[in-house]
Amino acid sequence: MFSTMSSAKSVNAIGNQLSPLHEQWKQRIEKVLSERLPSVETIPQRLHQAMRYSTLNGGKRIRAMLVYATGYLFGADEKVLDVPASAVEAIQSFSLIHDDLPAIDNDDLRRGKLSCHRAFDDATAILAGDALLMFAFEQLSNGTQDAEQIIAMIRILSEDSGTAGMIGGGSLELEISGKSIAVEALEDLHWRKCGTLIRASVLLGAYGATIPNQDILSKLETYAYGVGVGYQISNDLLDSMGNFALLGKKPKSDWAMDRSTFYNQLDPELASLRMVELFNQSIAALDGLDRVEPLQSIARYIMQRTLSICEASKG
Amino acid sequence: MFSTMSSAKSVNAIGNQLSPLHEQWKQRIEKVLSERLPSVETIPQRLHQAMRYSTLNGGKRIRAMLVYATGYLFGADEKVLDVPASAVEAIQSFSLIHDDLPAIDNDDLRRGKLSCHRAFDDATAILAGDALLMFAFEQLSNGTQDAEQIIAMIRILSEDSGTAGMIGGGSLELEISGKSIAVEALEDLHWRKCGTLIRASVLLGAYGATIPNQDILSKLETYAYGVGVGYQISNDLLDSMGNFALLGKKPKSDWAMDRSTFYNQLDPELASLRMVELFNQSIAALDGLDRVEPLQSIARYIMQRTLSICEASKG
Repeated sequence: MFSTMSSAKSVNAIGNQLSPLHEQWKQRIEKVLSERLPSVETIPQRLHQAMRYSTLNGGKRIRAMLVYATGYLFGADEKVLDVPASAVEAIQSFSLIHDDLPAIDNDDLRRGKLSCHRAFDDATAILAGDALLMFAFEQLSNGTQDAEQIIAMIRILSEDSGTAGMIGGGSLELEISGKSIAVEALEDLHWRKCGTLIRASVLLGAYGATIPNQDILSKLETYAYGVGVGYQISNDLLDSMGNFALLGKKPKSDWAMDRSTFYNQLDPELASLRMVELFNQSIAALDGLDRVEPLQSIARYIMQRTLSICEASKG
Repeated sequence: MFSTMSSAKSVNAIGNQLSPLHEQWKQRIEKVLSERLPSVETIPQRLHQAMRYSTLNGGKRIRAMLVYATGYLFGADEKVLDVPASAVEAIQSFSLIHDDLPAIDNDDLRRGKLSCHRAFDDATAILAGDALLMFAFEQLSNGTQDAEQIIAMIRILSEDSGTAGMIGGGSLELEISGKSIAVEALEDLHWRKCGTLIRASVLLGAYGATIPNQDILSKLETYAYGVGVGYQISNDLLDSMGNFALLGKKPKSDWAMDRSTFYNQLDPELASLRMVELFNQSIAALDGLDRVEPLQSIARYIMQRTLSICEASKG
């Protein structure tokens, strides 16, 4: 079923683990978010509790890692990258809280814990998402970068999260729910839904560090496209596997069919092949540049972890 | 009942109307918003329809007028003020859409039309609010002001709309719903809920025009406090009058009691007196400065219109 496994392995020999540097970034962003999110000691306490509950709940922090890894490419001090890293994680958290609401995905669980509206209430979840969105821009506006860099970060984040990007992707997904669409349209949807915030994370790492030149921006855009769409295919594949393991249902169940995913629009093997192709394009886009190993490792890590879990689920 | 009427009238002789300049600004912001909001011709169409439906629905545009009137004080070109004016109106529209949701105020109507979630659906209303919030920051990040001015506008808007400001006010209101609170706490709540976005509108007009000095900023802050809290008291008084006229219910009905308002916490006459005091403080704060008549007129207009309607409702 997953014959792409061997071809993926041949791309590199880094394996299935992120480096100690990535782990350090993950710990760093947890600390930064915990320090910067408003305290539960100050009013409105319930709102602050909900914001912290949903943001400090053990996410993988891929987006923050992309910020730090891109800043690393430019030799930036990690300290100046804390602002863009916390901004992209706040946007991700906002997006998950609102997506989980009864009116949208109606998910009771998020990372094994009650989703925000179930742990608190719908009104608090709506406001907590709104407040995290505001928090992201407040963070950026207080950055220590030069003014031009700060404005570029805000422009990128607001455009990539807006109706042409992430929020627009969520809306399109509702419109086409249950319908079959062409693979190209599906890739566009997944680019908007997941990829645009991945691109924003990479570009915020770049502008958080410096004013990047057009050549490097172009390579980073290529990198971000592959990781952005590839990560969504990975999520679709893993959801289906997880669902299979958890519920004993076959993939392509009704559960899987109510969303347009690569998984249920394409054969899983084809979806997996496209994922590997995308991640390999990302890795190749940075070949020959210095200090790109952390970015390339993130692409390899997501790809190989996905392939391993898919492989294991066959057993 | 409304003995403050005569004292309010003695403050000035401007009367109950806004000037042609204010009307021109109102028409200007309608055009600007219509041009800048995403088109219903581009996807996601339903989301864009909802954003436009809720934003272009005949609001009074007090916040946009405050931006233009403050910019006028500094002699700014109206064109450069379009960005902050559209940003504050987008934030106001986002806030009303989310407040109207079933989980929060559950309002079916907004300005005599179906509220966003009733005209579309809950999911679209949540996403349209989110998208308007993003739109506000996207607008600001594309402003033609100097970078320092743009960053100041973004910092002010995100802080005054966040958990210390408007969204925090919404959350506090839910927490204390149905409870009786001290008048001071009520004024703080109303400052957060309504006043902070009024302050942001005034300060965005200032920073949209220039980098203002501390002396003028301090006067504008005093002005904004009075208009910000006074406008909320005005809204409470008018809601109760409207309710009386519409439903034939007495003020202080159950409808009015489920929110902590000046109207049901204080005697209406005391609320009205406090409103007049606040607006007069706003007007006085700007006395002696040039080109402040448009700002002072806005304060007089809201105050006198409120008093006139209250007076008429006695008949």
